Amino acid sequence: MGNTFGRLFRITTWGESHGGGVGVVIDGCPPDLEVTSSEIQTELDRRRPGQSRITTQRREEDRVEILSGVFEGRTLGTPISLIVRNRDARSRDYEEMRVKYRPSHADFTYQAKYGIRDWQGGGRASARETIGRVAAGAIARKILHQSLGVEILAFVRRVRNLTAEVDPDVVSRDRIESNIVRCPDSDIAGQMIEQIEQARKDGDSLGGVVEAVARNVPPGLGEPVFDKLEADLGKAILSLPACKGFEVGSGFAGTKLTGSSHNDPFYNDGERIRTRTNRSGGIQGGISNGENIVVRAAFKPTATILKTQETVDIHGNPATLSGRGRHDPCVLPRAVPMVESMIALVLADHYLLHRGRCGTGHDG
Amino acid sequence: MGNTFGRLFRITTWGESHGGGVGVVIDGCPPDLEVTSSEIQTELDRRRPGQSRITTQRREEDRVEILSGVFEGRTLGTPISLIVRNRDARSRDYEEMRVKYRPSHADFTYQAKYGIRDWQGGGRASARETIGRVAAGAIARKILHQSLGVEILAFVRRVRNLTAEVDPDVVSRDRIESNIVRCPDSDIAGQMIEQIEQARKDGDSLGGVVEAVARNVPPGLGEPVFDKLEADLGKAILSLPACKGFEVGSGFAGTKLTGSSHNDPFYNDGERIRTRTNRSGGIQGGISNGENIVVRAAFKPTATILKTQETVDIHGNPATLSGRGRHDPCVLPRAVPMVESMIALVLADHYLLHRGRCGTGHDG
Amino acid sequence: MGNTFGRLFRITTWGESHGGGVGVVIDGCPPDLEVTSSEIQTELDRRRPGQSRITTQRREEDRVEILSGVFEGRTLGTPISLIVRNRDARSRDYEEMRVKYRPSHADFTYQAKYGIRDWQGGGRASARETIGRVAAGAIARKILHQSLGVEILAFVRRVRNLTAEVDPDVVSRDRIESNIVRCPDSDIAGQMIEQIEQARKDGDSLGGVVEAVARNVPPGLGEPVFDKLEADLGKAILSLPACKGFEVGSGFAGTKLTGSSHNDPFYNDGERIRTRTNRSGGIQGGISNGENIVVRAAFKPTATILKTQETVDIHGNPATLSGRGRHDPCVLPRAVPMVESMIALVLADHYLLHRGRCGTGHDG
Amino acid sequence: MGNTFGRLFRITTWGESHGGGVGVVIDGCPPDLEVTSSEIQTELDRRRPGQSRITTQRREEDRVEILSGVFEGRTLGTPISLIVRNRDARSRDYEEMRVKYRPSHADFTYQAKYGIRDWQGGGRASARETIGRVAAGAIARKILHQSLGVEILAFVRRVRNLTAEVDPDVVSRDRIESNIVRCPDSDIAGQMIEQIEQARKDGDSLGGVVEAVARNVPPGLGEPVFDKLEADLGKAILSLPACKGFEVGSGFAGTKLTGSSHNDPFYNDGERIRTRTNRSGGIQGGISNGENIVVRAAFKPTATILKTQETVDIHGNPATLSGRGRHDPCVLPRAVPMVESMIALVLADHYLLHRGRCGTGHDG
Repeated sequence: MGNTFGRLFRITTWGESHGGGVGVVIDGCPPDLEVTSSEIQTELDRRRPGQSRITTQRREEDRVEILSGVFEGRTLGTPISLIVRNRDARSRDYEEMRVKYRPSHADFTYQAKYGIRDWQGGGRASARETIGRVAAGAIARKILHQSLGVEILAFVRRVRNLTAEVDPDVVSRDRIESNIVRCPDSDIAGQMIEQIEQARKDGDSLGGVVEAVARNVPPGLGEPVFDKLEADLGKAILSLPACKGFEVGSGFAGTKLTGSSHNDPFYNDGERIRTRTNRSGGIQGGISNGENIVVRAAFKPTATILKTQETVDIHGNPATLSGRGRHDPCVLPRAVPMVESMIALVLADHYLLHRGRCGTGHDG
Repeated sequence: MGNTFGRLFRITTWGESHGGGVGVVIDGCPPDLEVTSSEIQTELDRRRPGQSRITTQRREEDRVEILSGVFEGRTLGTPISLIVRNRDARSRDYEEMRVKYRPSHADFTYQAKYGIRDWQGGGRASARETIGRVAAGAIARKILHQSLGVEILAFVRRVRNLTAEVDPDVVSRDRIESNIVRCPDSDIAGQMIEQIEQARKDGDSLGGVVEAVARNVPPGLGEPVFDKLEADLGKAILSLPACKGFEVGSGFAGTKLTGSSHNDPFYNDGERIRTRTNRSGGIQGGISNGENIVVRAAFKPTATILKTQETVDIHGNPATLSGRGRHDPCVLPRAVPMVESMIALVLADHYLLHRGRCGTGHDG
Repeated sequence: MGNTFGRLFRITTWGESHGGGVGVVIDGCPPDLEVTSSEIQTELDRRRPGQSRITTQRREEDRVEILSGVFEGRTLGTPISLIVRNRDARSRDYEEMRVKYRPSHADFTYQAKYGIRDWQGGGRASARETIGRVAAGAIARKILHQSLGVEILAFVRRVRNLTAEVDPDVVSRDRIESNIVRCPDSDIAGQMIEQIEQARKDGDSLGGVVEAVARNVPPGLGEPVFDKLEADLGKAILSLPACKGFEVGSGFAGTKLTGSSHNDPFYNDGERIRTRTNRSGGIQGGISNGENIVVRAAFKPTATILKTQETVDIHGNPATLSGRGRHDPCVLPRAVPMVESMIALVLADHYLLHRGRCGTGHDG
Repeated sequence: MGNTFGRLFRITTWGESHGGGVGVVIDGCPPDLEVTSSEIQTELDRRRPGQSRITTQRREEDRVEILSGVFEGRTLGTPISLIVRNRDARSRDYEEMRVKYRPSHADFTYQAKYGIRDWQGGGRASARETIGRVAAGAIARKILHQSLGVEILAFVRRVRNLTAEVDPDVVSRDRIESNIVRCPDSDIAGQMIEQIEQARKDGDSLGGVVEAVARNVPPGLGEPVFDKLEADLGKAILSLPACKGFEVGSGFAGTKLTGSSHNDPFYNDGERIRTRTNRSGGIQGGISNGENIVVRAAFKPTATILKTQETVDIHGNPATLSGRGRHDPCVLPRAVPMVESMIALVLADHYLLHRGRCGTGHDG
């Protein structure tokens, strides 16, 4: 537990920020799938630090190496081990964290839980841990795309109070990647970038909302009652660093409607049963209904800031702390590939589960 | 998968709305704990239909029977099997659902997934499934209370646009149970009840937000990185019927703050390390920090309404549907014990996990 | 853990010997499968006490009730809950066990583990627990038979020193059921029955070996490296009461051959690749190879005997104990359906796993 | 599944024989335990090829690198990632296996299951996979030794027909390591070595039996009913390459006794309740009873031999095959640390499970 996610498509991540490296073992990838390190690298490059002026300047190329599970360019059905070495670790930036707890970070709780912690760069609580998720997510996306034509896209919907106009049903990856904040609304994107840069100058940080859509998901994925699709998506995304909230479809706003205005009427579009609206967000009763799956995630402002803050040291004495090290003034641009990856991991797992459990029966 | 929740404190629920009954098997309850059916019944009575004029009028006493795992009033450490028979099943109310899909309900997706469905009363997708959760939750709460002094309370924070003033740090069960809508703010509670009764008369339904607090949770519970405490709480609560959103601590609203105003400063209160604010909601880095755990859940307006709606029949032909049967015009009052139960199940599981994994080490 | 077995076809059993009853929840049964209580009952009748003069005389009809998961005679894909009430519980036979530990039984270890135990009839350690396994096994067998044509047969190969001549490749259920000891070699069967009756008269008990075969298992089932098919079969069967050993194919005897005489040469029989011999027992590298799967299980002589034995009481004082109650002088005849059931549970689980993990790929 | 073993002390192994390397991720190791790579290396050296004239001559130093989870020499409670690079891979030895199936090896079944296989050196089915098990086992042993004083020793009990005289209650690691076949009976050990050398010269191979003992295991470990200690030990050991049988305590031989001669009488030795004999092998009702745990495992003669054998090629045509490559003429000496490791993994997992589930209750 803890470091493993998924049941049939199952990943186990490992690694601390300043240790030998980080990585992931993927167990359950179907055999005979073409996989190259370059397609994994493409996704890691969207996640890596130093990719733009609004992300942390830690210089890591995050080069991935495939150690097992792929033979002559195809998956074997055996575990795929992926590793990224840590290179630009500057432990000296963290000397102060050896003896002081950063507010709203994981220093205190790791110490409380384990009685020991790696104080360098956040140790296991570092966002570097998500490298394994994004690498595995690249493979999960490929399975879903090849088998079902599924397309998963996330984008920055809001930074602080700046909300973008985006239609998740038609947004494209090109639009999302057209600017460094990964917001497809270019006017708002410009303002977001400005505000993030200002926050960096102020030694402060910003939060916001990432929205994501999964298109072409067939009806039938999801395992009621505890492993409902929205429950597993929620867990997956809430396990990302800095995530404080999750909603699907109409979410919190939908609670202000009445049932008669909230329900999604069914109709027959000639080819399949569809719904006229999509307040369900593509999921009903925990199972996909064939409409686009739409979710949103709240990311708090980054905890590590340069401004001076009140805290205590490890002996319980009052102290102040000014962040050093290289940090993201806003995690949202880099959270985009993380959210996409978590959705891909959940859907790939549920696809294999559904195939296993209901493979025969009505449709065979 | 699917019908099992938890790892060391693990429950498996079963049962359809109109079948022989519903129940739960609890595996992993520590031995030698005093358990009586009456304390389980107390919680079930808070969940049961017909408890007030604003809930469904289906008449079920929901009497629980303990079939195993308890001997001379104490747990054996073996599986505890609990069963509640279905009594007041009126299948005739559902004849129309045999051939038509209710909008925003699980009829269509269960059919799509399984190729077969129990059309009576929603089958497995019925809220009757949560009986097992609430029964098991009663035992989980007892473990937490006896071992750690943990207290878990949920209440209705909002119905549609009516928001209550409640301080989760001091709210009491008596206040929550003082009215039928389970909102501790009595002025707002009165208005909520009125609005719910009006919705019922209109053949419509309402949604809202349940908030919950867990007090006296010790620091150290939670298993990074995938089984972070907020991730498991999110999954647990998002698996409840009609839940569309989840947030912890500052949640979505917190994303509008900057890091310097959002972070929770540490201080030493003489006895232990605490935080001056609690925007973290009692969890940092996926691990409890000793502050109150505070979460909120969005529940959509009930899908089954009496108003006429557009839909299709099982052959794909256009149809209209007017709900029959006995339904809740607003699920929130009955969702309160469900949310409490899910929190208890997550915390009990994490308590046993933590005891297993870190039982020796720094604190022993 | 503990009371759950399987991953995609997953069962959870519950119940003590003298409690309210025993039962099982089956999660993961594919939908739309015809299931009747009578076909489950048929298997339970082969397991039940009092079925012949060489089994315990406890009078239990072991009538099974289906409480969920089956609708209009077909599985829904939701959990199937099966229950059997305890009827003929004679707790007075066990008063002595309240204060004394039976040698080689579970009394002492349950007390040591849990600090509490149900001393009536062995509590959870009673063979009544296997009712849930056999009931679930009946459904697992049906899935395997309908989907793949798999046939699973077990029989008594040896009682003490009496070894039967049986060819597992051709043995039939009729032959197995033709006598009360379930040994298809009728000459030896007669002697076995005599010896068992003599042991009963002596207040003693006998052990022996059950052998089993699974025919028509397709190549490809099994999940290396830890969930090899033989490893899962071994665990399944070693979890049965009184089982002390397990072997597959050539087993312990095969270790006396050299590699050149032990290896199974491959040949092409025109339709498929086969092996000329089957010392592998149908499994190579943890994966079925299409040959008959052949396993054997050692069952010790029943621990509860009427002869007077040395022991201690719960205060640690020396004591003597003479078994009372109604016990099997030899568990093997009733172990036959248990072994078959465990094999069916393992194979059904691996069939669904394989379908989930490799469903596409080379064969689709 | 498949490549993960354990629940609270959980390992995931990865790697093919001729790929980039092999490794293991250990999740659930308690924090603050001193761990060095040299103590892991000590165990790996007992497993590695080329250690003596009776093992394969593949030259691998099997140097282990700790990539995560250990900080300043102590475990963090986070995943421990261990890697061993493959060095001396000679793929040319396996060109023939690209097109032919080795009898009684995993070539055919991997192809049947996955539709693709790594034909170099057995790929994932290679014994190199066990490197991860032995490395993780070294840490599991340390936990057990430090927390409970548990000592786990395996030795070669039999090679073909040569059976050693060994008392598992007093055998020492020094005696076991005193010769290259790891049989503490030096006379028989000499004969075993001779026979193995002769088999190598003949291009043939031998099998035999490994016996193991775990001493100082406290009463109470084991999770009835499916995760009985003997069931988990059986699964663990049957998942080792070439293992065809498992027994605990009296095992198969015990089935020839009557109950009155087989039962282990209890007595009070002044300090604790003990049994006069140990036919139970230290486990009763699936739970340890405080006596030595004694198990035996049957290992077949190595499948890969140099003698010419009948087989088919991947097109189904008849063929002959003469093994090349460097192979063990008898796996037993190297199986000794593997068996010890699997026992350690099972016991460490059950120790943490027991601590989690029963940590409070009677003993606290």
